[in-house]
Amino acid sequence: MNRPVAIGIDLGGTNLRTAIVDLDGLIVARSDQPTLADRGFEAVIADIVASVDALIGGASVDRGSIAGVGLCTPGPLDLREGRIIHAANLPGWTNVPIRNALKERLHLPVALENDGNAAALGEYRAGAGRGNDPLVMLTLGTGVGAGVILNGRILHGHFDNAAELGHMIVVVNGLPCPCGQRGCLERYASADAVVRRVLDADQNRDRHGAVNLSRDREGAVYPSREGERADVPLRAEDVAQGAVAGDPLCRRVWDEACLYLAVACVNIQHAFNPAKIVLGGGMSLVGKPLLDGVRKFLRAQAWSLHDDVPAIELSSLGADAGLIGSAALVLDLR
Amino acid sequence: MNRPVAIGIDLGGTNLRTAIVDLDGLIVARSDQPTLADRGFEAVIADIVASVDALIGGASVDRGSIAGVGLCTPGPLDLREGRIIHAANLPGWTNVPIRNALKERLHLPVALENDGNAAALGEYRAGAGRGNDPLVMLTLGTGVGAGVILNGRILHGHFDNAAELGHMIVVVNGLPCPCGQRGCLERYASADAVVRRVLDADQNRDRHGAVNLSRDREGAVYPSREGERADVPLRAEDVAQGAVAGDPLCRRVWDEACLYLAVACVNIQHAFNPAKIVLGGGMSLVGKPLLDGVRKFLRAQAWSLHDDVPAIELSSLGADAGLIGSAALVLDLR
Repeated sequence: MNRPVAIGIDLGGTNLRTAIVDLDGLIVARSDQPTLADRGFEAVIADIVASVDALIGGASVDRGSIAGVGLCTPGPLDLREGRIIHAANLPGWTNVPIRNALKERLHLPVALENDGNAAALGEYRAGAGRGNDPLVMLTLGTGVGAGVILNGRILHGHFDNAAELGHMIVVVNGLPCPCGQRGCLERYASADAVVRRVLDADQNRDRHGAVNLSRDREGAVYPSREGERADVPLRAEDVAQGAVAGDPLCRRVWDEACLYLAVACVNIQHAFNPAKIVLGGGMSLVGKPLLDGVRKFLRAQAWSLHDDVPAIELSSLGADAGLIGSAALVLDLR
Repeated sequence: MNRPVAIGIDLGGTNLRTAIVDLDGLIVARSDQPTLADRGFEAVIADIVASVDALIGGASVDRGSIAGVGLCTPGPLDLREGRIIHAANLPGWTNVPIRNALKERLHLPVALENDGNAAALGEYRAGAGRGNDPLVMLTLGTGVGAGVILNGRILHGHFDNAAELGHMIVVVNGLPCPCGQRGCLERYASADAVVRRVLDADQNRDRHGAVNLSRDREGAVYPSREGERADVPLRAEDVAQGAVAGDPLCRRVWDEACLYLAVACVNIQHAFNPAKIVLGGGMSLVGKPLLDGVRKFLRAQAWSLHDDVPAIELSSLGADAGLIGSAALVLDLR
């Protein structure tokens, strides 16, 4: 197996994904495991190294055919020094020199990138954004990540912190965000925000009110479906389904999420003027209710002055966009 | 005079400015006249040609030393075909082939650009934005224009309509904009918007209320200063001065303008991550109350997660930014 491949690593607060990616952007071998970040930096680095070594051994890949390792994590990052400055979902990880730590242990070139940026590169090179430049991607998960591809390259800006579009202010003096701002897009339109807003509203009224939620003995909240107790915690998907089914609270929260996403898309239109905006991340698994909602509000919010409203499409790489985009940092996908 | 020069033309709804600009971005000769756009396209083209010919003759410039003509106008434009698709301030000018019309009559290469983009290029090459990449400029005038310089070039996007940041939505379902959207930045933070909001509010209450306004026999509105009748119509500068002096209505309108400009700057920060945002256009002549206001609200609105808040500075080219930037389209300023 001598065709060049790359190692992609997507290091999130919850999951650590590792994969060997080929020139076509296809995953040859992969490993998914929990990050367990509270064990500290060295333990996670050891997991990454073990995972990469196991993948290489298992797939019988010649080390000489590995172009390098691409790693994406939540930001902000110091790209010049290869450090994680601060990662909200990796507690205690402040100013950690992750690029050099991996380079020394893996004996391979390592590229570090923001996870939203890597996902955008993945969709641009091997997914729903192929052939679109500029390309803007929003990843709707715990927060709202983003990436912008311009002239074939990731937009970094002066401080290496461009395309943090989840912190676009969509409601002046709106809901407080841990980032220190108020009214950030991700307070309304991330998977976590949608779930939290339903739960918060429901606690403030009759438990059997607009949305039927039950609690188990540990106090976790579940949506009750058709009189039965559901066996999974409330997800953004449940809120979307509730909205489609006509539940008033779900509808209000879901519509607001779609409205603010549409407003963000208008602002992205007037900033970057892309032909397409790709929606990815966990909440994009909702599919049609997300696309329908964002497109409906976009038509209502966008100007009529010029026919340059971007198309809104779902990620085609799904949860693997960051993984494949990370590999694309060190390997020119075809 | 054989050093290369360029002709810059800034064609606005009110003023037609023409200049010869040298390699240092300095204006060698200039002509300012009213556009009088309602006379139609051919009459304005004839004015432009006469003005350019007069400038060239008056400055004794060898035609062989003229690198070309750069022209900026309000958009949207068809840059590939060199047409004005539609210009809100040039009534009836729809789909006019201005680039070819000038090229045929002037026998010089002609470049066409959006006026906000040209102003940004001017500040980047010869003004307050020198050495800053990315650079974002907002021009606060009749509306709010904008331009973004990335990797040394004007950002155009897929539809050639990027950096229309005056139509960023800052208030969801806010004031209606002629563009068809609601809550656009320029409805709150342009020179015209600031004046209009004071006049509208004042008409709804006692004429001698919070702001002292008088009307002349033709019905034009003037601010009364220290008991005297002012001899100029209300300008954004008057509103800013009223705000500084403690007039409650002026203060509310001016503070809102600065607040929404600051919110736009936060959103620009998270989109392009520039080190600097330059404020230009007529309203930037207000100076300190504008800078102080935007900086104050920016500190309050911006995140604390990362030290990447852009510096806010005033244009150094003032009303000539578009003129000099237009020349820079065809001449590499030093």
